[in-house]
Amino acid sequence: MTVYTVNPDLDLVLERTVDVPPELVWRAWTTPELIMQWFTPKPWSTVACEIDLRPGGRFDTTMRSPEGEEYPNSGCILVVDEGSTLVFTSGLGPGFRPQIAQGGFPFTAVVRIEPDGAGTKYTAVAIHADESAKKSHDEMGFHEGWGAALEQLVDLMKVR
Amino acid sequence: MTVYTVNPDLDLVLERTVDVPPELVWRAWTTPELIMQWFTPKPWSTVACEIDLRPGGRFDTTMRSPEGEEYPNSGCILVVDEGSTLVFTSGLGPGFRPQIAQGGFPFTAVVRIEPDGAGTKYTAVAIHADESAKKSHDEMGFHEGWGAALEQLVDLMKVR
Repeated sequence: MTVYTVNPDLDLVLERTVDVPPELVWRAWTTPELIMQWFTPKPWSTVACEIDLRPGGRFDTTMRSPEGEEYPNSGCILVVDEGSTLVFTSGLGPGFRPQIAQGGFPFTAVVRIEPDGAGTKYTAVAIHADESAKKSHDEMGFHEGWGAALEQLVDLMKVR
Repeated sequence: MTVYTVNPDLDLVLERTVDVPPELVWRAWTTPELIMQWFTPKPWSTVACEIDLRPGGRFDTTMRSPEGEEYPNSGCILVVDEGSTLVFTSGLGPGFRPQIAQGGFPFTAVVRIEPDGAGTKYTAVAIHADESAKKSHDEMGFHEGWGAALEQLVDLMKVR
């Protein structure tokens, strides 16, 4: 997965350069206590997170709406390239078990972290089964949501 | 995946000891020209196979019925532990892209190959999303089909 070729018809891509070194971005993405502080754009929150950082391991989060309703998500980690690439999917659960995706469509996320000066070139790709899933994810606010979450990640890690 | 804990409510397991060394069983499972000779119990046949042996790589086969109808299947390789463990799934396609499974339900297959004297302890596990998928796969003849295919693999590799 070092080179991932984006399919513009099916994938959504968020690309940013941020002022935080790659190792802190990696730590923010792979440490449950940190995920809970940045993963969900306010006023939503992430109230639980469990990560077993290996292929086949769980990537579980529970999001809470401003009204207090909770939405658990269980996913499966596929690739762990320490410090540079994390891939996980909602199409499988822990132990690579197929699962019916919550939220209507499954997607696979590729998070690429590359050095850029003292900061990080950050690329997040959401990979969908078909154009309608891509469109739904886009309309749900993929770019705004993942962008706002990244800003929270940067704010959190800058003070560490 | 060195230790995979079977869930008897959701998984199907075929376990056999065969009179072929582990390296030949591995080669039979990972070489398209060989797959085409043993993968499908006769009178069905496998008329095409493409394997990109790495996590995220394709595991594609096309089966042909005795009547000549062709059934292409595209899957994604998840784990390659050279000579001992192969994991792939029909819940994702090449590049980890989620896909709607052909045949009604997705499953993940774990193939474990362990030395047993001069032969091989062979374990194949099919992992399903829920009990109904397990039941469907069982009723489709998982044990008979995978067992007959394994016998073809053994016959093929014994003469090599």
